[in-house]
Amino acid sequence: MFRDFYGSILNEIINSPDNLPYPVRKINFKKGECITKYGQIEDAVYFLNVGIVEMTIKSYVTEKVIDFFFENEMFTSLTSFLTQQSSDVQMKALTDCEAEVIFYQDLQIAYTSSLNANKFGRILIEQAYVKKAKREKDFLSKTAEERYAEMFRTHPQYISQIPVNKIAKYLGIHPESLSRIRKKLNS
Amino acid sequence: MFRDFYGSILNEIINSPDNLPYPVRKINFKKGECITKYGQIEDAVYFLNVGIVEMTIKSYVTEKVIDFFFENEMFTSLTSFLTQQSSDVQMKALTDCEAEVIFYQDLQIAYTSSLNANKFGRILIEQAYVKKAKREKDFLSKTAEERYAEMFRTHPQYISQIPVNKIAKYLGIHPESLSRIRKKLNS
Repeated sequence: MFRDFYGSILNEIINSPDNLPYPVRKINFKKGECITKYGQIEDAVYFLNVGIVEMTIKSYVTEKVIDFFFENEMFTSLTSFLTQQSSDVQMKALTDCEAEVIFYQDLQIAYTSSLNANKFGRILIEQAYVKKAKREKDFLSKTAEERYAEMFRTHPQYISQIPVNKIAKYLGIHPESLSRIRKKLNS
Repeated sequence: MFRDFYGSILNEIINSPDNLPYPVRKINFKKGECITKYGQIEDAVYFLNVGIVEMTIKSYVTEKVIDFFFENEMFTSLTSFLTQQSSDVQMKALTDCEAEVIFYQDLQIAYTSSLNANKFGRILIEQAYVKKAKREKDFLSKTAEERYAEMFRTHPQYISQIPVNKIAKYLGIHPESLSRIRKKLNS
């Protein structure tokens, strides 16, 4: 639940939604449902309670999977959210999802006066920056096999729930190459 | 001066250094001096009053220029600063530089209780995230010529102060290709 996540980042116990600096609402997405579309201006950040979300980007004629989000993670089309310009990426529910949502306007209001809102926002964006920098480096320095092995290590419970062609698109390889990697790692 | 920059981000007028949430000290670097070395743990963020700083990364046998910083910009080896792990990048003064410095420990202390320190930090890292995402996209979607034209547009006064081979390394092209681009843009 978002409240626990928020408390863990701030090292505080948040007993009631009233102790949060902004309203947080429950929201459900059906499998295959679009959460944020290409070209839309992102107006919310989400906390995922149940399910898997994929993030894609259009690349010439094809579409690339650039990220997966899992339970207890926050997600949004971050550049669009921060700049309030149209989104280059699209987010879709890969399974039925239960999430919590915080809206842009509510967050901006909290940012004017809440120490905790700013602290939480700062720490989250610091983490997003480090994750982005790490991904960039991994793409330049690691093989698809190493990246698959890392995904398998960090999120083993999800691998079976994501279609093989999606994982291949994420790794930037052909599904056949992924089959070979899987066989090798399983043997 | 850092104090004015800090105030402009927060929309406040900061009359005295005492109104800053952390100590800020003057520091000078000679042309060619290393500010942060490869492998060092970054312990400071800088605000550049005078001069140009280059940021490089080792890439196999060669070295790539990944960024330049100019007057009135903040700079640090950000991933190293945030994670307190060793730096992949190196920063060097390209000209004699005058800067102001804030140390990691002082910043962490301010972050525990200062609304303004957290707000300023959050906004700065949001900007760094957007800049990083934009750069990534530009590298994928723009030609060296377009990127040079943009640099020329945003920082015309500096182009003449940066050696041609450094600009070529930044654009990821041969110095001869850059000469052709310059001739074309000047004609």
